[in-house]
Amino acid sequence: MKFYDCSTAPSPRRVRMFIAEKGLDIETVEVDLREKEQMGDAFRQVNPNLTVPVLELDDGTRLLTTDACRAWLEATYPNPPLMGASPVEKAEVADCLYHISVDGFLAVAEGLRNSAKGMIGRALPGPHNFEQIPDLAERGRQRVTLFMDTLDAMIGAKPFVAGDFYSAADIDALIFVEFAKWLKIEPGEQHANLNRWRADVSARPSAQL
Amino acid sequence: MKFYDCSTAPSPRRVRMFIAEKGLDIETVEVDLREKEQMGDAFRQVNPNLTVPVLELDDGTRLLTTDACRAWLEATYPNPPLMGASPVEKAEVADCLYHISVDGFLAVAEGLRNSAKGMIGRALPGPHNFEQIPDLAERGRQRVTLFMDTLDAMIGAKPFVAGDFYSAADIDALIFVEFAKWLKIEPGEQHANLNRWRADVSARPSAQL
Repeated sequence: MKFYDCSTAPSPRRVRMFIAEKGLDIETVEVDLREKEQMGDAFRQVNPNLTVPVLELDDGTRLLTTDACRAWLEATYPNPPLMGASPVEKAEVADCLYHISVDGFLAVAEGLRNSAKGMIGRALPGPHNFEQIPDLAERGRQRVTLFMDTLDAMIGAKPFVAGDFYSAADIDALIFVEFAKWLKIEPGEQHANLNRWRADVSARPSAQL
Repeated sequence: MKFYDCSTAPSPRRVRMFIAEKGLDIETVEVDLREKEQMGDAFRQVNPNLTVPVLELDDGTRLLTTDACRAWLEATYPNPPLMGASPVEKAEVADCLYHISVDGFLAVAEGLRNSAKGMIGRALPGPHNFEQIPDLAERGRQRVTLFMDTLDAMIGAKPFVAGDFYSAADIDALIFVEFAKWLKIEPGEQHANLNRWRADVSARPSAQL
């Protein structure tokens, strides 16, 4: 098995931390996104979508999205469960993951990719080029700020994002919070639940990766 | 159990068809989005995010997103599997669902919500109001057109979107194609795989719902 990663990028970290929480040790290939290695011929053969993470199985099958990698890992190595154990837990994790992805992660990406000089002409990942939309950068920033409130409420008094169990929702929420720093947006003192939870999950070994 | 639906909207149809393919019969409550019933006090008590679908379980637990509803249904009624059976199948379904959601469904929504007169000030679903961004409407249209090519290639010679088995990816891809009609974008003659697959899955009883 082989894991195509990029140590500086938030998306592959969603799988890197998932692998660590499963207690797995998988050979890793670093792809340097800052040097645009994903646009080169070699990586284009690995993933024509030009994105990491990619998980290559022993039979050569390649899983090309975070969701695909994590679905395979959860089904193959069910313990500890990171997508919830019971049906209701699975629903709670899926619900949190949806909001963190669409209202959190994509909002940071909108804010960044539509404003950063290095992203001119590359406002979306993937094989097609799109110009930046300045109004979308601003909307992204607004949504990220709002999502800090949402995430604080989502966590509430619970130990973890989706309930009393650690899950992929904690991985994604932590990566969202750290990704938002790229826009210089951080949780405030009013986000007491979020700050308490963040200190807890940041201390786990997987969060050092 | 109770299913909050809207017969004219694409998102709740993703769960409605999933329920039908599972062979389940669940009491349905119609929420009239065209009359903005989801913004009213009664529905606000059901889902403060103001979106359908919602699945209310017998113990009163409410599942507030498509992903949450489907994760619970798949775990509770595993047969027939609609999220893949083997680990690789689960990965293939997750991969397709990701692209159909982010590159397909969200692109149609961007195109529509940023241009329709009825959506002025409501360019995103959910509890917060956002103004329309005309450049984003145009980008949405471009992405939908590109995604017809992607979907055609994704299907290829296979009977179904994710492989040789029917799955949630077929449900979502069909709803994407029909949702794209709202932008007057349809598959062309060059999309032979897509057209062949569409005729097949459109004939299933679930597609009549």
